[in-house]
Amino acid sequence: MRDLLPAESAAIGATAAELLSCFASEGYQRVTTPAFEYADVLERGLEVDRRDLVRFVEPDTGEVALLRPDITPQIARIVATQLQDRPAPWRLSYQGTVIRRRRGRARKERQAIQAGVECIGLPGLEADVEVMRLACRAVHAVGLRDVRLELGQVGLARHALQPLSEGARDAAEQALARKDIAALERVAADAGATRAERKTLCALVDLYGDLDVMPRARKALGSWAKPMLDEVEAVAANAPDGVALGVDLGEPRGHAYYTGVSFSLLAPGPGETIGGGGRYDDLVGRFGEAQPATGFGLDVDHLRWALRAAGVEAAREATPKFVVVDDAELTRALREAGAIVATLPKGRRDGLEYARAWGYDALVGARTARRVDGAERRRTMDVPALFAWARGDED
Amino acid sequence: MRDLLPAESAAIGATAAELLSCFASEGYQRVTTPAFEYADVLERGLEVDRRDLVRFVEPDTGEVALLRPDITPQIARIVATQLQDRPAPWRLSYQGTVIRRRRGRARKERQAIQAGVECIGLPGLEADVEVMRLACRAVHAVGLRDVRLELGQVGLARHALQPLSEGARDAAEQALARKDIAALERVAADAGATRAERKTLCALVDLYGDLDVMPRARKALGSWAKPMLDEVEAVAANAPDGVALGVDLGEPRGHAYYTGVSFSLLAPGPGETIGGGGRYDDLVGRFGEAQPATGFGLDVDHLRWALRAAGVEAAREATPKFVVVDDAELTRALREAGAIVATLPKGRRDGLEYARAWGYDALVGARTARRVDGAERRRTMDVPALFAWARGDED
Repeated sequence: MRDLLPAESAAIGATAAELLSCFASEGYQRVTTPAFEYADVLERGLEVDRRDLVRFVEPDTGEVALLRPDITPQIARIVATQLQDRPAPWRLSYQGTVIRRRRGRARKERQAIQAGVECIGLPGLEADVEVMRLACRAVHAVGLRDVRLELGQVGLARHALQPLSEGARDAAEQALARKDIAALERVAADAGATRAERKTLCALVDLYGDLDVMPRARKALGSWAKPMLDEVEAVAANAPDGVALGVDLGEPRGHAYYTGVSFSLLAPGPGETIGGGGRYDDLVGRFGEAQPATGFGLDVDHLRWALRAAGVEAAREATPKFVVVDDAELTRALREAGAIVATLPKGRRDGLEYARAWGYDALVGARTARRVDGAERRRTMDVPALFAWARGDED
Repeated sequence: MRDLLPAESAAIGATAAELLSCFASEGYQRVTTPAFEYADVLERGLEVDRRDLVRFVEPDTGEVALLRPDITPQIARIVATQLQDRPAPWRLSYQGTVIRRRRGRARKERQAIQAGVECIGLPGLEADVEVMRLACRAVHAVGLRDVRLELGQVGLARHALQPLSEGARDAAEQALARKDIAALERVAADAGATRAERKTLCALVDLYGDLDVMPRARKALGSWAKPMLDEVEAVAANAPDGVALGVDLGEPRGHAYYTGVSFSLLAPGPGETIGGGGRYDDLVGRFGEAQPATGFGLDVDHLRWALRAAGVEAAREATPKFVVVDDAELTRALREAGAIVATLPKGRRDGLEYARAWGYDALVGARTARRVDGAERRRTMDVPALFAWARGDED
């Protein structure tokens, strides 16, 4: 659990606000859920590996609380228990911190800031396409152009893993996620899977790449796979322009609650997905009346990493930022014109150092104005001239 | 720990964003601190009654964690341990949730959303005035006009309580906070306080009200009080126009860390302060190098309550909000023009009910457009006309 210092806190806040505003434009309304919940409720919706949870015991009551590793189950809980009287679809957005423990290291948690949406109450293609397109639109809106959209369908791996015993299934799933065909073959053989079953499982390992994987998949998998592959192709056909499309049909999605088409967004830089989501029709029913559902979450840190890797500069700060030494009148005039102004008391000699350390554009003293890049001019009360000069538009 | 549903989540988010933007205009830069910290660090800065804390034990390590009841000690920790190399003053802002247990009720916590600033590294009047004025400006900025600013000085009560033994001091402080003169007299007598000491203590009980309390205070308290009363009057002389000024000189501020001039903001409605703050010169040093400091926090829920009580309407939503049934072209055109548009699939008959339940202005179907107030017109592709009509500007 880390602090966000000024530059990072402001940047993350700005990116998250842009994402939420993009979500809002399509009718996704924000809800806020606690970072911390009693485990007995939240765990109904969690399929995160228990070892990844940060759990605490309340000494007085013995009750177990946990830091949320995921916000989607909280949204499912809200829809089923607090918003159940509203007409479908529930279009809700969120932004918040999630925590997962890193295995084997005490006190080492990974804290992520997620922003996402859930579209609950609509089955089928239309909603799958809506959220997939919205995810792409949102990352475009914050300036990321070079994005890869990778489609999956958890039903395929689930079907192929079905014949195995529960214990073997877990090991096979991990081998599949690692794309370790030798381990997968061995686990399946040890579990007594038939040759056909083993062939299907191992076929999944290679079914990733560009869209030309799809005809290969239709051939390698049996007719049972046809409806699922049709779904993936229908969503792919509706992908927005400007994203590179791919598929990963063997992805078992670990312990997640997905039930249908899923997707990941990838971009150079973070080395992990910048977000993803998919259909999860079995989750809301754990808290109340069942509802079909789909949604996605973006990792704001990974997204910002990808933006940096893509060389996308933060939009140039439109607001000029001044440090003014002991001049209430000028301070007032600059603020009224929309500037950010920090004041320093009379006699402070290190004003320029202050301006540099805290990210201001210029220091205005009694006689001179000095820009943090070293430029200097006579001090003036002309606010528009100070604005232009502070930002280097005029020297 | 409660959820914020769409309307409340959006309103609180908007108010908090306005406050942070106001703080930013004076150079207060946002930091974000975890809602949850290991107790061994955070407790160095907490003077909240231990019974008010929500504490948890991590089963593996036995370490105690707590939900933060206050954000100021976290900011003090950041300044002393992560930003110690920057030049003073540290002007930092924050927004976040704090949790305090309600005594004697299991699982009943009060969750508050606080937004505030800390100005660290500046001693004396100038900074005291800066944060007091900023607090007033911020509540004005969100629309609250009728505010009372009540000044205090914790040094007065601290001096008067000094002669008592530690046990008696606690009881006397509580009696003073309740303005219970009989109990205060009794505790002080039992503790063996002299007549003069008792007189001073009891005088504090009545030293609240409008500014005419100040000459009374100078008379009732000894010359020891003069520097503190001078401070209060100096801050009062710099209060902004448009706030009603008052003082409460007996306020001991409970277990808080204040060391000098303090203030509360009051407004009709919530029955509790909407915020407050003051000088706390002893806090930062508990985490590193000592620094003079002052700041304030606003309770966003109480502030919104006061706004409702004052009849301040939320600014009329400038963005028109449509529900469009099965029309991708119109949806795109409306969104490009800046509208919020939620779509419904073809064949949905309850579109108007959906629009009402989720706060939209109008429903646009294949042939007609219907406003949630019942008005109806032929559907058109003319976006400006739809905008004006949706908001009732044109019928």
